Amino acid sequence: MSDSAWRPGLSRRNFLSAVGVAGGMGTLFATMGALGLAPAAQAIPPYRSPRRSDFTLSGRGAAKVVILGGGTAGLASAYELGKAGYDCTVLEARDLVGGRNFTARGGTVQTDVRGDRQTASFSDGVYMNTGPGRIPQWMVTLDYCRELDVPIEVFTNTNANAFLYNEAAGMREPVRYRTAKADVYGYVSELLAKATDRHALDKELTKTDKERLLAFLQDWGEIGAKKADWRYTGTPRRGYSVDPGAGEQAGTPLGPVPSLARTFADGVGQYFSFEFDYDQAMLMFQPVGGMDRIPMALAREIGENRIRLRSVVTRITDGPAGVAVTYLDANGAQRQVTADFCIATLPPHILARIPHNLGADVQNALRAWPVETAAKIGLEYRSRWWETDYRIYGGITETDLDIGPIWYPSQGFHGERGLLLNYLSDDSARKYGDLAHGKRVRRAVAQGVKVHGESHRAELTNSFSVAWHHIPHIEGAWAIPPTGTPAYRLLGKPAGRLYFAGDWLSHMSGWQAGAFESARLVVGKLHERVLSR
Amino acid sequence: MSDSAWRPGLSRRNFLSAVGVAGGMGTLFATMGALGLAPAAQAIPPYRSPRRSDFTLSGRGAAKVVILGGGTAGLASAYELGKAGYDCTVLEARDLVGGRNFTARGGTVQTDVRGDRQTASFSDGVYMNTGPGRIPQWMVTLDYCRELDVPIEVFTNTNANAFLYNEAAGMREPVRYRTAKADVYGYVSELLAKATDRHALDKELTKTDKERLLAFLQDWGEIGAKKADWRYTGTPRRGYSVDPGAGEQAGTPLGPVPSLARTFADGVGQYFSFEFDYDQAMLMFQPVGGMDRIPMALAREIGENRIRLRSVVTRITDGPAGVAVTYLDANGAQRQVTADFCIATLPPHILARIPHNLGADVQNALRAWPVETAAKIGLEYRSRWWETDYRIYGGITETDLDIGPIWYPSQGFHGERGLLLNYLSDDSARKYGDLAHGKRVRRAVAQGVKVHGESHRAELTNSFSVAWHHIPHIEGAWAIPPTGTPAYRLLGKPAGRLYFAGDWLSHMSGWQAGAFESARLVVGKLHERVLSR
Repeated sequence: MSDSAWRPGLSRRNFLSAVGVAGGMGTLFATMGALGLAPAAQAIPPYRSPRRSDFTLSGRGAAKVVILGGGTAGLASAYELGKAGYDCTVLEARDLVGGRNFTARGGTVQTDVRGDRQTASFSDGVYMNTGPGRIPQWMVTLDYCRELDVPIEVFTNTNANAFLYNEAAGMREPVRYRTAKADVYGYVSELLAKATDRHALDKELTKTDKERLLAFLQDWGEIGAKKADWRYTGTPRRGYSVDPGAGEQAGTPLGPVPSLARTFADGVGQYFSFEFDYDQAMLMFQPVGGMDRIPMALAREIGENRIRLRSVVTRITDGPAGVAVTYLDANGAQRQVTADFCIATLPPHILARIPHNLGADVQNALRAWPVETAAKIGLEYRSRWWETDYRIYGGITETDLDIGPIWYPSQGFHGERGLLLNYLSDDSARKYGDLAHGKRVRRAVAQGVKVHGESHRAELTNSFSVAWHHIPHIEGAWAIPPTGTPAYRLLGKPAGRLYFAGDWLSHMSGWQAGAFESARLVVGKLHERVLSR
Repeated sequence: MSDSAWRPGLSRRNFLSAVGVAGGMGTLFATMGALGLAPAAQAIPPYRSPRRSDFTLSGRGAAKVVILGGGTAGLASAYELGKAGYDCTVLEARDLVGGRNFTARGGTVQTDVRGDRQTASFSDGVYMNTGPGRIPQWMVTLDYCRELDVPIEVFTNTNANAFLYNEAAGMREPVRYRTAKADVYGYVSELLAKATDRHALDKELTKTDKERLLAFLQDWGEIGAKKADWRYTGTPRRGYSVDPGAGEQAGTPLGPVPSLARTFADGVGQYFSFEFDYDQAMLMFQPVGGMDRIPMALAREIGENRIRLRSVVTRITDGPAGVAVTYLDANGAQRQVTADFCIATLPPHILARIPHNLGADVQNALRAWPVETAAKIGLEYRSRWWETDYRIYGGITETDLDIGPIWYPSQGFHGERGLLLNYLSDDSARKYGDLAHGKRVRRAVAQGVKVHGESHRAELTNSFSVAWHHIPHIEGAWAIPPTGTPAYRLLGKPAGRLYFAGDWLSHMSGWQAGAFESARLVVGKLHERVLSR
């Protein structure tokens, strides 16, 4: 098959794997036929879940598998293997499943590695996704939502009414996304139209190209015609200071329009490309009720009896007949699980601390993943002033402040309360993360006031924060895969009877989909091995 | 107050009116104080609902009002007047309230002016908003949703995964929004960077401006650096033919990249400005369960006993002591209502057919509104193949086909069934509208197949269509207000004891918000008159 997809941008792999999940292989091949895709033409075979009939037909039996870690990769492995009747046991060090997919609600308690203890006091219905928060349409995570009956809703990743604010550029007040876009695109259009008209691009453009380009620029940038020297002088797209209304209220477009120099000096255009990212472009989605609906659904399907919480792995021993894993149970007693195979889904830097007999190469490889951190600070307000005062219903305000972006809630519109979220990345996450919770909040709120005014402080009622480098048994937001290196290749293969899995063994580190895809890859390999025994 | 709003893009009017609705005038003035806005500085006073205490304090009594039309303007008038105890009667010609805000569900029956009768056979949970479908954040419609406890959710007005397709440009297959944007913005960046570098814009740009512009273009268009001649050669933003995954699956970015000439010849860029529109920019919203949740909530608050359905107005007589309105009731009997005042919210071209004694100037003015039409064709499918096959979860595909855009459902993600909607405007609406329903559907489906392939036909299970010029008592999609003319000004004033209201008397014709704002304007004037009697 050529690189030119049948439909541009349609991922055959995901599409077909989605069909495979939902409809079984019969549907899959029927669909491939309808698309004019011969099965042989698939460069990458679609994922196919193990199933009981694989053993019925082959006369072989399922194996026993111990899975280290009850995050997405571990749960997905147990869930997929469970479809074929594998006898799985999941060991999870924390007192809940999901790993970084951790949703805080009223009553959630979290003690960090420093011993700092927080209890969330959020109101009923208010929650905070402290880890992953959004799902793009193309990722396999959505297929699991469908398969597991986890309802989804739009995650508001972009909003024309949200603000942009660059304090360092000397902006004195935030500007709305829509206003900034109108100005930047207006000036870009004016400049390119002028240059085209001045024959600066005659080498690149035929007469017809020019006509088409100029027509596009006039519409897209809402600039004047040639006789008006292609000038950008503002547009109602910027917004209104008095909205259009009834009777004689025609509306007053927002002014004044900043100069070209001021527009580019403000640097607001730097935020526009975010929404073009393959991973970030709207539409994005979230489970209704909290991201942890996914691990909860997986755990339900796996069976709670197969998941041992508060079980801290202390030793991994691979042998010719099986794998032995020792761990400390909830009462601090040492226990052991033996199994035919092991899938280790703990983060590489955590795995590297656990004694094992997998060899020095494996141990060195585990150290090859640099670990980044991130932090989230959730602020619950007693009113949804961003909706009533600013007409901001969801979306993200971008700033150059050390609190990073401010997320408005994607749910609970018009409700009594709501939660804003700051998403801090590496350096800021460390700086804020190393403070006690109360200080994190005071500092973050003082920054937020610069954007929103006093409501950002005065209406605050509850808060919760997670700095991932301080969360026990995780100690980081994500590990950066050293793809293309011997270390990455080594851990992509089984070490004896042990397989490694996790988003850290994918090209989507930090995304749940990376964990799902890695789990599928390993489950497929393990199942193939079992079937060929 | 200067034109430079306190927060760019924040509509003071809407914000303050929202506060007024939600919190009463005390809250309103406190808020204005917090914003540093003296009440005297308000050019346009915020709307304030009439209330019972207005009469208690003044010692005067509320009046009797007959309202012609149970669409948004009529219902909003009755609702607002009802807050102060006005004795309102709404006469509605159709057998349901809402006017053009008409949601079809399983069992909905519609007979058009030609006598063509349709019964919708939609499955449970499937509905079709045949009139208004989306609400921008800034419009007062959302305030009514809040006040009336009508839950809202995101309306997916834009989606990077949806398609663009221009048959007339010679496109052989649709392209995804994200791919088209990457290419158009990539080439725009390349061209403008080259022109800047060639000193074609030295008159407009200082050295610092140039540096900032070039940095912006490199990021925004993802083009090469100066040493790579600023060339656009594609980007992962276009999408992938094989998505990034686990292990060694790095992903295969979608190719090949069309030439600059081809990109502009396809004309895909013409669709980009839609999402900058003040009325259309995401985020947009819809009531959960159907747009008619709004008129249903209004009717509930007004009291069903005050609304007379299937009541066709036959004569309006204004007199010194009151207004008399005769109508044919549900049984075809002639009846009459008398009232102190009348608010006429019927479309101007419908009003113009009703005998009245309001004078020739009023009659001529009613003829000054040109009427446009629109049509919607709803197609229910037995599977949500756009989600599973194309990973399109909501949004709108734009085409140059006569079916216009194709709306994917904004709700029911991952459900069993779903409804696609074609939104046809003027000429197409007439062309399709004049066909019988079955022919409309066959023709529309044949066009849709060009975009989506055979699923667009094969999975179809139910359908419904509305061509607004054929809907009894409405006969059009919206009337274009002749703002600035004597006719518009005349009907903005009462004709004796009769007031005109409707979206047709606003700068937002075709939007529910126009009807709400017009109703508020008229209610305010009428209430003031009653209070000053």
